[in-house]
Amino acid sequence: MVEATKKKKIIIDTDPGIDDAMAIFVALNSPEVEVIGLTTIFGNVYTTLATRNALHLLEIAGRTDIPVVEGSHTSFTKGTKLRVADFVHGTDGLGNQNFPPPLGKAIEQSAVNYLIEQANQYPGEVTVVALGPLTNIALAVEQDPEFSKKIGQIVLLGGAFFVNGNVNPASEANIFGDPDAADIVFTSGADVVAVGLNVTHQVIMSDDDRDKLVQSNGKFAQYISKILDIYYSYHHESYNTKGVYLHDPATIIAAVDPSLFTYTEGVVRVQTSGITRGTTVFYNTVKRFMDETEWSGKPTVKVAVTVDAPAVLKLVMDRLINS
Amino acid sequence: MVEATKKKKIIIDTDPGIDDAMAIFVALNSPEVEVIGLTTIFGNVYTTLATRNALHLLEIAGRTDIPVVEGSHTSFTKGTKLRVADFVHGTDGLGNQNFPPPLGKAIEQSAVNYLIEQANQYPGEVTVVALGPLTNIALAVEQDPEFSKKIGQIVLLGGAFFVNGNVNPASEANIFGDPDAADIVFTSGADVVAVGLNVTHQVIMSDDDRDKLVQSNGKFAQYISKILDIYYSYHHESYNTKGVYLHDPATIIAAVDPSLFTYTEGVVRVQTSGITRGTTVFYNTVKRFMDETEWSGKPTVKVAVTVDAPAVLKLVMDRLINS
Repeated sequence: MVEATKKKKIIIDTDPGIDDAMAIFVALNSPEVEVIGLTTIFGNVYTTLATRNALHLLEIAGRTDIPVVEGSHTSFTKGTKLRVADFVHGTDGLGNQNFPPPLGKAIEQSAVNYLIEQANQYPGEVTVVALGPLTNIALAVEQDPEFSKKIGQIVLLGGAFFVNGNVNPASEANIFGDPDAADIVFTSGADVVAVGLNVTHQVIMSDDDRDKLVQSNGKFAQYISKILDIYYSYHHESYNTKGVYLHDPATIIAAVDPSLFTYTEGVVRVQTSGITRGTTVFYNTVKRFMDETEWSGKPTVKVAVTVDAPAVLKLVMDRLINS
Repeated sequence: MVEATKKKKIIIDTDPGIDDAMAIFVALNSPEVEVIGLTTIFGNVYTTLATRNALHLLEIAGRTDIPVVEGSHTSFTKGTKLRVADFVHGTDGLGNQNFPPPLGKAIEQSAVNYLIEQANQYPGEVTVVALGPLTNIALAVEQDPEFSKKIGQIVLLGGAFFVNGNVNPASEANIFGDPDAADIVFTSGADVVAVGLNVTHQVIMSDDDRDKLVQSNGKFAQYISKILDIYYSYHHESYNTKGVYLHDPATIIAAVDPSLFTYTEGVVRVQTSGITRGTTVFYNTVKRFMDETEWSGKPTVKVAVTVDAPAVLKLVMDRLINS
């Protein structure tokens, strides 16, 4: 029981998603953390499908004790056309495997209210690991001025710091999915850790690693190896990497074992319109500008700058295989 | 005469400016190039003062044979408030030295017409070295659809590629000065070489180097050492460098001896509004995106990525001292 109380409570805000599925399984099989709930969001798929997939993944894992809470169906600024990445994850978000519908249902609460409630129930103790656009979290920040202080930490997959994006040269998909929400979260004053493409593009699961998953008897490894085809095809076609980027699993590991990354601290602002909509601009607060800037006086966040990629990959592989 | 005809014809588009003064003197003392004219632009100072300073510098150099042509007084998109950097260069742009007014005058022609005329007179042979906002050049591109093909090359100081800006974390001063113009020039199809802060912040004139200028008998070195105070003070206050950045001189050297830099090639677009107004986003055209982007199908430019900084500094020092 002492051990259990030391576990970091995490809520995964997720849009499953093939690498979300990996990340959720890794989290469920990580003794360092206790997954207390999943909240859902649009991104890789629309929110209703994200909810269905979250329920399905927990049923596969035998963890229907964990609540799934449905999040926002629209971006923070209503009326923005949502972009879903079915070409990366399949139209079902899970590699076009036509899994049967889940037996369970999402609980009767909004993700925003759930996030605020959990932050109030365990002040300073809950880590939100955000794997999709930051709509739910921005809504919580907006609805409850205390949320940013009461939430323990927000570890988010988002941004492309001093590198190109993956939706277009300027923008990373999660930030592009809701730039207004992202700017609110980055400047909320919460303890934010951002894991961006500059880091996740270093964490690659190779074709050989995939073979290891296929050959293992691990429950999670077996499931994941079934849904990986389209994710590998997309990467082979779009990039010159011999493998796939582990965006979401790397971000979960940043919550599970933060020591595998190094961080810099500064102010991040997000461009919300124009051709670079979704661009994340980091400012380390060292250089002094003559005029006030839009970064001046804003709260700082931590941004991951290096990663022990082999160690992160090993942890992901181990926790999928030994399951 | 054979030698002379081999010289690269350059027009310096400039907003002098302390480091512009250095750059102009270096160019005038570089046998590799022939300065055929100076066009002026706002930036470090307003355009009328830039013209006055350009005339003054040519008189100091004894090169009143070179025409000065006054450029635009306003940015490409009219009505934008201009930002001048008097805190870097002094209210007179030349270190607050109260030099007497020049004897000469700008020629009776607009910079835009002059640029177009020169490109037509020497098709493919004229290099414009742009040391300020790109207004004059964008106007030439707009006014003459053939300009981008007829101009030999545009070597420009501008942008902050994968690094922070100097006006604010997102933007470099010259691009910030007229983002619409910059986007037009970058996508014009001309042979563009961009030298950004990622490179110019590596080329530093130290306090010791300054002492060498002071102690030399070179005409240009003597003049420059008189106007450097405010430029050094600004750098000492705003940065933690023991010296000053040689933005404009480094850019002139990129025209004089391109081999001292390495380049990457890709599409550059400029954000023209919002908090990251003036941001330059480079795309190397390798990664394939699922959707058309604002970078798709646009002409590529060359962007300087590395610089032999000691060699550039040595060349600048030599040509100021041996004068």
